[in-house]
Amino acid sequence: MSDSKDSALEAEIRRIFAEAPFVQSLGIELVDVGAGRCETQLQLAQRHLQHHGYVHAGVQATLADHSAGAAASTLVRPDEQVLSIEFKLNLLRRARGQRLLCRATVLKAGRTVTVVESEVYADDGAGQSLVSKAVVTLAVVPLAHVTPG
Amino acid sequence: MSDSKDSALEAEIRRIFAEAPFVQSLGIELVDVGAGRCETQLQLAQRHLQHHGYVHAGVQATLADHSAGAAASTLVRPDEQVLSIEFKLNLLRRARGQRLLCRATVLKAGRTVTVVESEVYADDGAGQSLVSKAVVTLAVVPLAHVTPG
Amino acid sequence: MSDSKDSALEAEIRRIFAEAPFVQSLGIELVDVGAGRCETQLQLAQRHLQHHGYVHAGVQATLADHSAGAAASTLVRPDEQVLSIEFKLNLLRRARGQRLLCRATVLKAGRTVTVVESEVYADDGAGQSLVSKAVVTLAVVPLAHVTPG
Amino acid sequence: MSDSKDSALEAEIRRIFAEAPFVQSLGIELVDVGAGRCETQLQLAQRHLQHHGYVHAGVQATLADHSAGAAASTLVRPDEQVLSIEFKLNLLRRARGQRLLCRATVLKAGRTVTVVESEVYADDGAGQSLVSKAVVTLAVVPLAHVTPG
Repeated sequence: MSDSKDSALEAEIRRIFAEAPFVQSLGIELVDVGAGRCETQLQLAQRHLQHHGYVHAGVQATLADHSAGAAASTLVRPDEQVLSIEFKLNLLRRARGQRLLCRATVLKAGRTVTVVESEVYADDGAGQSLVSKAVVTLAVVPLAHVTPG
Repeated sequence: MSDSKDSALEAEIRRIFAEAPFVQSLGIELVDVGAGRCETQLQLAQRHLQHHGYVHAGVQATLADHSAGAAASTLVRPDEQVLSIEFKLNLLRRARGQRLLCRATVLKAGRTVTVVESEVYADDGAGQSLVSKAVVTLAVVPLAHVTPG
Repeated sequence: MSDSKDSALEAEIRRIFAEAPFVQSLGIELVDVGAGRCETQLQLAQRHLQHHGYVHAGVQATLADHSAGAAASTLVRPDEQVLSIEFKLNLLRRARGQRLLCRATVLKAGRTVTVVESEVYADDGAGQSLVSKAVVTLAVVPLAHVTPG
Repeated sequence: MSDSKDSALEAEIRRIFAEAPFVQSLGIELVDVGAGRCETQLQLAQRHLQHHGYVHAGVQATLADHSAGAAASTLVRPDEQVLSIEFKLNLLRRARGQRLLCRATVLKAGRTVTVVESEVYADDGAGQSLVSKAVVTLAVVPLAHVTPG
């Protein structure tokens, strides 16, 4: 991929992050993006926690799903968009630390269905540990179909 | 279940909702709770949406997972707590409207593992439609194990 | 639905069961089928078990997935077919008995994606108990796309 | 791990494969096993197919689940055993060829819950392609709890 194509891709993905209020509200940031992959991060704050002081599963799910969507978006045509059909998230370790990192990688990009896996790591300053893993199934749909009436 | 037991149960579940910052931050409210079931709601606002104007999958996942945890909590002993191990969420219809409703029902309560299904409905004022469904697996663990050090 | 349409539907579903070697090899039988639903059964034998003497998860998965496919098939056009994209199976209780029963119900039938839930019951002669539950996502594709070259 | 410990581990895993009638009936074979991983294969025959001539999802699910169980078994104590709680299988490509290969790898081995991912490849003689991927959650239980009464 040429540098200019990479820049256009990154600009498009940045736009999706900026235009998604829930993603903005959580504080999810784009770190890096390339063909079939996306890396994101989230600086953790009190508002991201559940009642025992760990990061809420819903925060991890949002990060995993949104990053998967961004990774899948890199492999569709300009007149297409992706929509999550379903995802499964396995919570492997209780998540605490200063930030979450997510690496999403496309497993299979199809004409109508794309499958992505997202790994979420907790970074406590000393190191990273894998805290959850999701497999996300997305539909590839014409852009015209996803605009609310 | 006697009325006083019911009230104690509801008070305990309300406490879990109140003490979970992410649940508070989203605005998830407890509607009703009983043995093996929990009903919740969320008044929808701009901050809950993704970039096409629909409710973000992460919002639905948080509602489904948290309600499942509350339903599972009603069937454990006072010295036990539940923690989500994994969940899968199927997004059935694009979600819009004034509020989301979630009904979580325990499928199987075991000594160490409980399985709950959560149905999420969108209410647009005129009626409700099923927008997503989750099946959530939770571990039943001694309370002492879930307090961060 | 008229009786003649029902009969044609049932004949088509029976054909799918008869033409699937793995389904025949296991011994899965069609019990009943209607718009958006399918009921199947499997007489249990030694060959269906895992090493502790319970029904292997793979047998339950096959029953749940195939019944879901049949239920989804009832709602597509004659020139379309369904293919499983993914499924999740929760094993709720160890399965033993004389036969398994499966009831598959369509949760959402879409133009390109259909979601079905399948409940598997074990029947020990005295009664039935829910032993596993699956949620299955299927793609609706033109018939021409599913014939091996 | 010493060679003698490796041999004992492999012997134990081979015993599990030999004593599971459904695994024997399908023809699943152990290829290699080590701490936290297991590789298996299945020579494909007519009886493994669905009605379009591809490998049935249930065959892939059985291979993925059983291999995950074997991988998880390598990390438990001699007086413990593993039981699948749930798994999700994503079908990425239609599976055809001479044999299936499965590589199962433990993502997280816990005291009571272990999570494993299994990748299934189809080998058509010319090369291998990833046809499905599962994430499997297993309970670690005392051996005494898994023997049917």
